[in-house]
Amino acid sequence: MDKIIAIQGVQGSFHHLVAQEYYHKEVEVLECMSFAELTKSLVTGVAKEGVMAIENSIAGSILPNYALIDENNLKVVGEHYIPIDMNFMAMPGQKIENIKKVYSHPMALLQCKEFFKKYPHIKLIEDADTAEVARRISEKGSTKVAAVASKAAARLFGLDILAESIHTKKSNATRFLILSTKKKEPNGDKIDKASLKFELESKRGSLVSVLNILRDFNLDMTKIQSMPIIEFPWKYSFFIDVIFEDYIEFKKAMDILEVMTERLTILGTYKNSL
Amino acid sequence: MDKIIAIQGVQGSFHHLVAQEYYHKEVEVLECMSFAELTKSLVTGVAKEGVMAIENSIAGSILPNYALIDENNLKVVGEHYIPIDMNFMAMPGQKIENIKKVYSHPMALLQCKEFFKKYPHIKLIEDADTAEVARRISEKGSTKVAAVASKAAARLFGLDILAESIHTKKSNATRFLILSTKKKEPNGDKIDKASLKFELESKRGSLVSVLNILRDFNLDMTKIQSMPIIEFPWKYSFFIDVIFEDYIEFKKAMDILEVMTERLTILGTYKNSL
Repeated sequence: MDKIIAIQGVQGSFHHLVAQEYYHKEVEVLECMSFAELTKSLVTGVAKEGVMAIENSIAGSILPNYALIDENNLKVVGEHYIPIDMNFMAMPGQKIENIKKVYSHPMALLQCKEFFKKYPHIKLIEDADTAEVARRISEKGSTKVAAVASKAAARLFGLDILAESIHTKKSNATRFLILSTKKKEPNGDKIDKASLKFELESKRGSLVSVLNILRDFNLDMTKIQSMPIIEFPWKYSFFIDVIFEDYIEFKKAMDILEVMTERLTILGTYKNSL
Repeated sequence: MDKIIAIQGVQGSFHHLVAQEYYHKEVEVLECMSFAELTKSLVTGVAKEGVMAIENSIAGSILPNYALIDENNLKVVGEHYIPIDMNFMAMPGQKIENIKKVYSHPMALLQCKEFFKKYPHIKLIEDADTAEVARRISEKGSTKVAAVASKAAARLFGLDILAESIHTKKSNATRFLILSTKKKEPNGDKIDKASLKFELESKRGSLVSVLNILRDFNLDMTKIQSMPIIEFPWKYSFFIDVIFEDYIEFKKAMDILEVMTERLTILGTYKNSL
C-alpha cells in the first residue's frame, strides 16, 4: 500500500494539487483542517509525510508554520512551487451582483484584494480552506455565497466560475515544504538545499560573520529572515535557506555555525526545486 | 488646530492607542477601515501623518504594508512598540458557552489561536478591525457573538470581558510605523534608525558585500528580510532596518549601496524607539 500524505484542506485544494505533482496523481491524502492538525498527524504516525505551504510573494513567510515545524521536531525533506490561480466560484446560475459573501482562506482573500475592491457589496469571510468552502457550497446548494479556490475545486464540486484568475500578482507562486518526522540523508538522492534556524545577539557584525562563513564554504542564500525574540531584546532568530553543490562543504559550514550561533537547528536538507 | 492622524480602525483600536502614546492623549484621529484607505488619506492630504502596524513576533512582517508604503512613496518618520493585550468580550450577561461566533482582525485571531482551541464550538470570523467589532456588538446589542480587542475598547463600548489576555505569547509586542508624505531630516531631532529596501542578484556573496559595507560604516542591522521577485528568478528584494550613531556615516554607506544594489529606496530615517 502507498504511504498516506497529510495535506491542509480537502481534495481539490492547492495542497492536494502539490501532493499530486510531488508524489503522483493517485496519491492517498489525509485531509487536515488546520496546519496544527497536519503536524499532529505526522507526529502520531497517521500520515508518513505532509505538504505545508510556507511562503508566497505577497504575504511572505507563514511564520507560525516555522514554529509548528520547530516545536514538533519535523524535518523538511523536499519543496515544491506552484503558480497560484485563484477563481471566483458559486452554484450554477448565480451572478456576481447577487453574491453577498465570499468565504476563503485568508491568504487567498489577500491575494484577490484588488478584485474585491470593485465589488464592495461582497463581504469577505475567513475560512480554513479554499476547496472546503467550494465543497460546502456545492453540498448545501447555497446561493448568494461564493468561494475563492482552484479551477480543480470548481470542477470537482460542480461550481460555476464567475471570474477566473482574480489574484492580483499574475506571476505569484506559493512555496510548499514536504515534511517528515525523519530527516533525509544524501543516499543517492541529490541534496543541494537546506533550511536553517539559529539565534544570534545583534552585536555589530555578528550576522555578517556568519554569512562570511556561508560564502567561504560556497553556500548561496536563497532566503533570509530575522525575527526579534521579544523576551530577549537585541537577540534575533534567523531563518535562512542555502543551496550548495558539495554536501561535505555544507556539513563543515554547519560545524562552524554550531559554535558561532546559538540553538542552531537544521530544519532539513533536500533537493532544490527552483 | 492640531494635525489629523490617520489610524487603521476606530477609536479604541490598538492603532488609536499608539497614536495617543506617540502624539498625545487628545490626538485627533481619522478612522480608516483598511491600510489602503489609510495610505490614501495621506496621499490626498486629508491626514498629515498616519500610524500603521508593520510586524509582530507571531505573524512576522505585514508585507503588503511595505508595498503600500513603497507604491505611494510614503516616508517612515517614526516607530512605536506596544505590548499586545487581547481580550475576549461580549454584551454584559453573555457566557463563553453561549458564544457561537467571534469576529476580529485576522492577526488578533492568530495571536489567540491556542485559546480558541479550547472552544471548538466558537467560529472565528475575520473582520477589518478589532475595536470596530466591539462597537458593532455594543450598538446592536448582539448576543451569542464576541469580539477580540483591547481593554480600552471594552471600556469605551460597554462590553464585558469574558476572558482577559487570551493571546498566546505573553511577551508579544507589535511594531507600528509613523508615516508621512515628507521625509524627516535630522534638524535637531535625533535620527538614529533607517528602513531600506533594495534589490540584488543572488550572485554568491552579493548580500555579504552589502552587509560588510553596513558594518564598515558602523550600521547595526535590527531587521533583515528577503523576498523573491517571482518575475526574475534569482533576484531578491531586501528589507533592512539599521541603527547608527552618526548620520554622516549612514549617508556615506547609502552612497555606496546606491551603486552596489538596484532600486535602493530609503523608506525613512527616524528615531529608534526600542
